[in-house]
Amino acid sequence: MRPYVHVNVAMSADGKLSTRERRQVKISGSSDFTRVDMIKAESDAIMVGIGTVLADDPSLTVKSPALVTERLENGKDENPVRIVVDSRARTPIDAAILHKGKGERIIACSLQADTEKKEALSQYATVIVAGEREVDLPLLLSILHERGIRTLMVEGGGTLIWGFFHEGLVDKLTCYVGNMVIGGDHAPTLADGEGFIHESDFIRLSLYGFERIDSGILLTWTVERTTT
Amino acid sequence: MRPYVHVNVAMSADGKLSTRERRQVKISGSSDFTRVDMIKAESDAIMVGIGTVLADDPSLTVKSPALVTERLENGKDENPVRIVVDSRARTPIDAAILHKGKGERIIACSLQADTEKKEALSQYATVIVAGEREVDLPLLLSILHERGIRTLMVEGGGTLIWGFFHEGLVDKLTCYVGNMVIGGDHAPTLADGEGFIHESDFIRLSLYGFERIDSGILLTWTVERTTT
Repeated sequence: MRPYVHVNVAMSADGKLSTRERRQVKISGSSDFTRVDMIKAESDAIMVGIGTVLADDPSLTVKSPALVTERLENGKDENPVRIVVDSRARTPIDAAILHKGKGERIIACSLQADTEKKEALSQYATVIVAGEREVDLPLLLSILHERGIRTLMVEGGGTLIWGFFHEGLVDKLTCYVGNMVIGGDHAPTLADGEGFIHESDFIRLSLYGFERIDSGILLTWTVERTTT
Repeated sequence: MRPYVHVNVAMSADGKLSTRERRQVKISGSSDFTRVDMIKAESDAIMVGIGTVLADDPSLTVKSPALVTERLENGKDENPVRIVVDSRARTPIDAAILHKGKGERIIACSLQADTEKKEALSQYATVIVAGEREVDLPLLLSILHERGIRTLMVEGGGTLIWGFFHEGLVDKLTCYVGNMVIGGDHAPTLADGEGFIHESDFIRLSLYGFERIDSGILLTWTVERTTT
């Protein structure tokens, strides 16, 4: 058993999450920001890869006071469980995600992670070891499910999202396409990693809906075939 | 003066034009195929980069007999002028684009191109030299304009499209987003090349329209600021 997985991402019209220097860029606008905050507030957990933590240092907190109040009234923590997929436990000890806002944090690492680093991080987060070299995503998701997490929002980056698609672990993809061209054969994309070679391996989606938001468009896809 | 430039491309939901092995894959369906054939038939010229010729060996002919008839009735050639941007004149002498269908072909190369190769290609195509190392796209477009080409459709690949955006030479972008995830940090994307670093350099688009076609969605963007 695993949580329902919703990948949510903003990309440029040419499919980039940021520049080749991985600098955080503004792709969507304020209406989309509100939408994303709402999904976050409705999720049991939110996840990013270590690359995103190192590049952007996000706090992943729910921003709207009204949504925070609603969570509290429903007996939840202020924020969803915040999870970093971080094979070698490289999350900086002063990372915003470990310090900003209330709520549980999880660092998911592999057997490659240094013991001292894991101990240091365990002051601020629950450290889960899943996988030998890389984090074993199916195993991690089953552990998260056991811990009561039923809905998981995956924010990126492209390497983590690729891992989810590659393992057939995605149920829904919302992709905000922004009104700019960034370019770059080394810029991060929605799904990086190795990539599929054979058309028969491609992950097939269904276009569930689309909506103009701010200066771009939000595409909602569901995954046709998925393993649960 | 330069032609009106329309970039038309099909990409996966994660922004890829094909797999990392650059194998041609089916991203759109038959309705989109008809749409593309129509744009092609309405254009004075259609252009691809040498990478696309080497990977896919396209003929770039107009496929619909009705559209061919219409072109002929309007006093045009069966096919628009077919142009390969090919700095070093590497187009194979047996490439489909040089042999299939009637109409003019242009190989645009730079001063780096080997004289013998240019001579061989000139049996089948008009060879234009524009640029020292790479093809100088603004110069090439002004030469094409002088030759009477007023509308140019650019089909790809990602390196050529990046060149057009980088030089501010795009007027319209139609992007069919297909219902699959391909993945791969080395797979070709809509705009490859170096990419922009600074947000102020990003090419800004306006979302002109969107329409569900086959199993995907067609996004039509116009370019906000462009040099003519």
